[in-house]
Amino acid sequence: MLSVSEAQSRLISLLPPPGRIEHVPLVEAEGRVLAQTILASHDLPPFTNSSMDGFALRSADVQSASRESPVELRVIADLPAGRDPRGISIGPGQAVRIMTGAPLPQGADAVVPVEDTDQAERRSITLPSSIRVFRAVAPGESVRPAGMDAHAGETIFAPGRRLRPADVGALAMLGISQVPVYPLPHCAIFSSGDELLPPSLPLTPGKIYESNSVMLQALLRREKARVTFLGILPDRMEEIRDAFERAVQQGVDLILSTAGVSVGAFDWVRKVLEEAGELEFWRVNVRPGKPLLVGRYRQVPFIGLPGNPVSAFVGFELFVRPALARLSGTSWRPRRRYRVFLDEPIESDGRESYLRAIVSEQDGQYRARLSAHQGSGNLLSLVKANALLILPSGVKSLPVGSEVEAWFLDE
Amino acid sequence: MLSVSEAQSRLISLLPPPGRIEHVPLVEAEGRVLAQTILASHDLPPFTNSSMDGFALRSADVQSASRESPVELRVIADLPAGRDPRGISIGPGQAVRIMTGAPLPQGADAVVPVEDTDQAERRSITLPSSIRVFRAVAPGESVRPAGMDAHAGETIFAPGRRLRPADVGALAMLGISQVPVYPLPHCAIFSSGDELLPPSLPLTPGKIYESNSVMLQALLRREKARVTFLGILPDRMEEIRDAFERAVQQGVDLILSTAGVSVGAFDWVRKVLEEAGELEFWRVNVRPGKPLLVGRYRQVPFIGLPGNPVSAFVGFELFVRPALARLSGTSWRPRRRYRVFLDEPIESDGRESYLRAIVSEQDGQYRARLSAHQGSGNLLSLVKANALLILPSGVKSLPVGSEVEAWFLDE
Repeated sequence: MLSVSEAQSRLISLLPPPGRIEHVPLVEAEGRVLAQTILASHDLPPFTNSSMDGFALRSADVQSASRESPVELRVIADLPAGRDPRGISIGPGQAVRIMTGAPLPQGADAVVPVEDTDQAERRSITLPSSIRVFRAVAPGESVRPAGMDAHAGETIFAPGRRLRPADVGALAMLGISQVPVYPLPHCAIFSSGDELLPPSLPLTPGKIYESNSVMLQALLRREKARVTFLGILPDRMEEIRDAFERAVQQGVDLILSTAGVSVGAFDWVRKVLEEAGELEFWRVNVRPGKPLLVGRYRQVPFIGLPGNPVSAFVGFELFVRPALARLSGTSWRPRRRYRVFLDEPIESDGRESYLRAIVSEQDGQYRARLSAHQGSGNLLSLVKANALLILPSGVKSLPVGSEVEAWFLDE
Repeated sequence: MLSVSEAQSRLISLLPPPGRIEHVPLVEAEGRVLAQTILASHDLPPFTNSSMDGFALRSADVQSASRESPVELRVIADLPAGRDPRGISIGPGQAVRIMTGAPLPQGADAVVPVEDTDQAERRSITLPSSIRVFRAVAPGESVRPAGMDAHAGETIFAPGRRLRPADVGALAMLGISQVPVYPLPHCAIFSSGDELLPPSLPLTPGKIYESNSVMLQALLRREKARVTFLGILPDRMEEIRDAFERAVQQGVDLILSTAGVSVGAFDWVRKVLEEAGELEFWRVNVRPGKPLLVGRYRQVPFIGLPGNPVSAFVGFELFVRPALARLSGTSWRPRRRYRVFLDEPIESDGRESYLRAIVSEQDGQYRARLSAHQGSGNLLSLVKANALLILPSGVKSLPVGSEVEAWFLDE
C-alpha cells in the first residue's frame, strides 16, 4: 500500500500547473497566487523623506544646540506631506517645517522632531517664523533615503507567491492596481449513497443526513477554490456517470467525490472511473482515510475521498490541499507541526495516523488527550478536538509522556 | 502610556456584543459565529449500523469458525445503505448482506467484514444464497450503536463558536440547514493624507502610493468583516468629518482609519473625533504602532491606526482583531506563539515590540533573524518576514541564542 508521501507525490504528478493568467483588481488579490515576477518600478521610498513631524534643517547648524542654549533657525517654508518640494532650498540658519513622509527639501540633511523644539506644545496651522532647536541632530537623523527599502528594478515578488495582506499593500506601493494571478482552481464535488439525505428533509428509517459535501465545500472555499456542487447522488451507475460528465462539460480542474470508493458491491464510482478514465491508485496507508481513490476521468483529475466524515476530512487535508496548491500555481507546504506530550497512552494500528485530540497548554508545554473514540464516522470527536496528533507509520502504541507532533485545527 | 493589554481591555469594553441574530444557509456558515445553543435533535448515529461492508449475523453462530473450518450461513436479505430495515430479522444460521452505514437488522449483533468470508473476491450485485465465514466474530464487532457519538438532547455547540468546516458537517448531521449566526461586523475604513495616491494614478513629486487601505481591507475580509471603503481623503477637516458622517449613516459597527493620528499640525482625524464624539485613549506602549487612537464618533466605535504601513499592520493584529471578535459575538484568542532562538542580537527601545523576522527550522529548532531594517514604513521587510518576534515591555536588547516568542505570518 502507498505511504502518504508516495501518494501525495503521485497525485501531484498527475496535475497540470495553471495554463492561464488573469488580472484582478488589487483589492481582490489577497489569497490569490501571483503569476508573474513583480519588479520595483521605482525606488521605495520614491524620494528621501522625513520619518517624523518636525523641521528639516542642516545638521551642521545645530551641533551646539541644547535645552539651555537653543539654536534659533528661520522657518522659510512649510512642507506638509504631499507637497511638491521643488523650489524649496534650505540655506544656513534656515529650516522648513516638515510632516512625516514629506520630501526632504534641498539643502537639508536631517530632521529635528517637533518635540525637540519650542513648537512641541503648539498644534497650530500657522507657520512659525522661527524656531528654537533644543538638541544637536546627526546628519541623516529622522530621514528615510530614497531607495532605502528597495531600488527600482529590484525583484519584489516571484511568481507562485500566495499573496498575503501585507503583499497587497506592497503591490499598492509599487503602483500596481491590476494583479496578474493564476485562475482559481475549479473543483466539482458530489457525494453518493442511497442512505444520504440533505439536512432540509425529514429523517426516515435507514437514512442519515449527509454531512461531507457541506464540510468539503467549506474546506474548498477556505483554499480559495471555485466550487460546483453536483449533488448527493443515489448509488446508481448512470447518475454517477452523469455527474462526471457534467463536471467535464464545465471544464473543471478537479473532480472530488466522497463515499462510493470502498469494496461494497454498490460502489459505482470506481467502475465509472475505469470505464472512461484510469484509476491511478487506490488505498493509502493512513488512518483514517485508507480507501482513497485517485485517477482521471476523460483527462480530468479525480480524487475519491472515503465516506466516513473524519476520513474525508483527513483525506482533504493530506491530498486535496496539495492538489489545489498545485492547480493554483503555488507550491504546497505541509502545515507547521507543534510538539505535544501525551497525557494518556494511545494506540493505533501501525498506519500513519491522524488522531483527534484536545491539546492544552500547561506550564509552557502542550499536553494532549484524545477527544473521544476514534471511529472514522465520529465527526463530533473532530468538532471537540483542537488538534490532530500525527503518529508515523509503524507506531502502534505510545505511553503517557511521549512526545508526538500535532496540527492545530483552530488556527 | 497604556500597555498593549490595557489598551485591548479598554477597547473591548467600548464595544457592544452583536444585538441581532440572522439565519444563513448551512453552505455559507463556515467562519460565521453561532448565535444559539445547538442540541442534538436525535441520536448520532441515529440507528445502530455497520461500520464495514460485510454480513450481519449472530456472533454466537460463528464462534467456531476458522479458515480451515468455515461456518456456512444462509443469506436471507440484502441491506444496502439507505434501505429501511424494518421487516428483516435474522434467526439462527442466517445472515444479511450489509453495507457500511446500513442499519443492523433485528436479531443480528455483529458484522463480519466481506474480507473474512468466501465473498471477498466477488464484487457482484447478485446476492449469494449462502456464505462461508472464516473466523469468529465478537458481539458488537463492526457495529456502531445508535447514540454512540451523541445522544438526543445533548448540547453540541454553544453560542459564540466560530464555525469550522467540521462543525458545518456536524450541523448537517443534525439536520440543520439554516444556521442561527450573528451578523458579520460592518466596518468602514478610510485613509488620509495629501501625499497619498491610489495605485492607478501616475506618481508625481512629493506623492507616494497609498498602501494601507488595500492591506487593511484584505485583513478585514480575512476576519470576515463586511467592508465599506470611504476613500483616500485629503488632509481637510470637512472631508474627514464627511467620511465619519457617511459611516454613521451606513450604520457601521466600527470606523477604522489609517494615518492622521500623530502630532502633526495637519492631523485632523483627532480633531473631528473630539468635535462629535469622545477620545477614549491615544498612544500605546508598543513598537511599532504607538500613535493608536481609540474613541467613539456619535457612539460608533473608532480605531485610528497609524499611517506607517507596518504600524498599521501590527495595530490591526493587536487591536482591530480583538475588536472584530467582540463585535462578531465570539471571544478573542491571541494567536498561538512559537518559541524561537535568535541567530543575531536584537535591540528595541523597551516598548512591547513586534519585530519582523525570518524564522527557519534547523535541527528541530526555530532560528530567527530580522528580515531587514525595522523602520515602520518598510512594508517590504514585512513582506520578506515570515514571523513577528515579540519582545515584552522593558526588554531593550537580547544576545544571540536568546529564546523569544514569535507569531508566524504565513499560516
